Amino acid sequence: MQELQVLLVAGTHGNEINPPWLFDQWSQQFDLINNHGLHIKKVLGNPDALKVCKRYIDRDLNRSFTKELLDDTSCKDHEVMRARELLHLHGPSGIDPSQVVVDLHTTTAAMGSSIVIYGRRSLDLALAGLLQARLGLPIYLHEGDDTQKGFLVECWPCGIVIEIGPVAQGLLSAKIVDKIKIIVEILFEELAKIKSGLVNLPKQFVVHRHLESIDFPRDMMGRCDAILHPSLLDKNWFPLLFGQYLFVKSDGKSINFEGEGNPIPVFINEAAYAEKNIAMSLTQKEIIVFSRDWQVDLRHLCLFNS
Amino acid sequence: MQELQVLLVAGTHGNEINPPWLFDQWSQQFDLINNHGLHIKKVLGNPDALKVCKRYIDRDLNRSFTKELLDDTSCKDHEVMRARELLHLHGPSGIDPSQVVVDLHTTTAAMGSSIVIYGRRSLDLALAGLLQARLGLPIYLHEGDDTQKGFLVECWPCGIVIEIGPVAQGLLSAKIVDKIKIIVEILFEELAKIKSGLVNLPKQFVVHRHLESIDFPRDMMGRCDAILHPSLLDKNWFPLLFGQYLFVKSDGKSINFEGEGNPIPVFINEAAYAEKNIAMSLTQKEIIVFSRDWQVDLRHLCLFNS
Repeated sequence: MQELQVLLVAGTHGNEINPPWLFDQWSQQFDLINNHGLHIKKVLGNPDALKVCKRYIDRDLNRSFTKELLDDTSCKDHEVMRARELLHLHGPSGIDPSQVVVDLHTTTAAMGSSIVIYGRRSLDLALAGLLQARLGLPIYLHEGDDTQKGFLVECWPCGIVIEIGPVAQGLLSAKIVDKIKIIVEILFEELAKIKSGLVNLPKQFVVHRHLESIDFPRDMMGRCDAILHPSLLDKNWFPLLFGQYLFVKSDGKSINFEGEGNPIPVFINEAAYAEKNIAMSLTQKEIIVFSRDWQVDLRHLCLFNS
Repeated sequence: MQELQVLLVAGTHGNEINPPWLFDQWSQQFDLINNHGLHIKKVLGNPDALKVCKRYIDRDLNRSFTKELLDDTSCKDHEVMRARELLHLHGPSGIDPSQVVVDLHTTTAAMGSSIVIYGRRSLDLALAGLLQARLGLPIYLHEGDDTQKGFLVECWPCGIVIEIGPVAQGLLSAKIVDKIKIIVEILFEELAKIKSGLVNLPKQFVVHRHLESIDFPRDMMGRCDAILHPSLLDKNWFPLLFGQYLFVKSDGKSINFEGEGNPIPVFINEAAYAEKNIAMSLTQKEIIVFSRDWQVDLRHLCLFNS
């Protein structure tokens, strides 16, 4: 029987330098993070982008795991090649396979620590729910968004993103590193419990499911002509109220929220999303009830080869 | 008689995007900033780097204005070519000459707004002193540092840097844009007073003169193995006390200040300086007494061609 292996990825975006720095330190001090007896495989997602402190070389690695790109042998983009390599080496059917992947990211948005999952796979939901029960982290459920796809974690049977902020690109922060350490350790602890069959599933948990993304206001030439309103910057995870300031122009005039339903914004002010025409994403709260089947699915994850 | 022209530069570093954004808005709303009747020439320092949101393409433009590089015709680095072009177009002897240059920068360091001058040229000191008298901005006097030279403003008869922070690279911030607007307008007002001979020189002002820069702690492989201590991040312009935390390692151990003389740190946590091996720079306060001669120098600046 092959044992469960967890793939821990840092530096999928080369300008998110805190998780890779922690990897580096951890390699030199093996007891820096308690692995709770698990087999952990650490890997840098995009080491070449990390060397030049850029999000990516040719295209966003964390949008390169689509079937189309992976199968298109004519595509030699750096990140698509790297996506294939990561799957070849560490994918669920790779040379040194992992069954669970945790992809460590940072954000410039002041949204604290959170979990991101893509779609409603039971294993992702279960793992995210367990982590929320331990640490209270909000969960951003990204679904139904055709403009953003091909995320790394989707190529493994179970995979979540840990997103920690706010921290600028290219800056090391002791507070951010501490948060990563704590979350990763608790995650290992929960995975070890799953493996040993001792996991205690909560009854329910809360997700913020993706509704839509909002672009910056633009002039007739397509240039961004307003900035996020300062009063909004620390309002990730807070419902938008009708009339609330969203953007401000250079002459001080504001552009206000006039939508309905009090959606909840996330990723307000993520620097990397400007090129994706995303000023923020809007979500809605939803309660997910744990299913008994998930416990069975989790057991299967750990006994995949028996 | 040729009239005084002020060259205002934004985007000398392509990932400091707030000043260029303000330029863009100002081009569309001519009354956004009051020019107090001055001839202002706006220019983007490094438009190609700005397009890709990188500090530079080949090398730091704001270290490329050394005589050696400018004269070395074999050097075709993007930024050296651009430095020559800027001088050819807008230099004091250029096609469309300016006599005063103001280079607008942002920093990731939480040091608020400040003025940077390079060496003790009377015109720079006078202009910085006037701006301090109006707005209370601290002045970082960079001198005696052979590792950092070739700054843009040094190639004009009078030139200062306005440094505004903290803001992450690649992020627009309404607060930062507001600060730039205010400072630039007051600067124009003071320059207009100089031009009309109505300027009121204060008796003295304070500079923080450069002593040395401190690198991050490094392991035997030369890799940075400690991060700036969180308690230090908001302590720009505050004297360091013996024993004060400077850095923290991944295991939580701190590295403390054990130097003498209570130097005053600046540029704590400037992301762009990591590659320059600068974790912060240390300075010492000095009082500069206004010289009567400077008033004459200032008049000459405005009457250079009469």
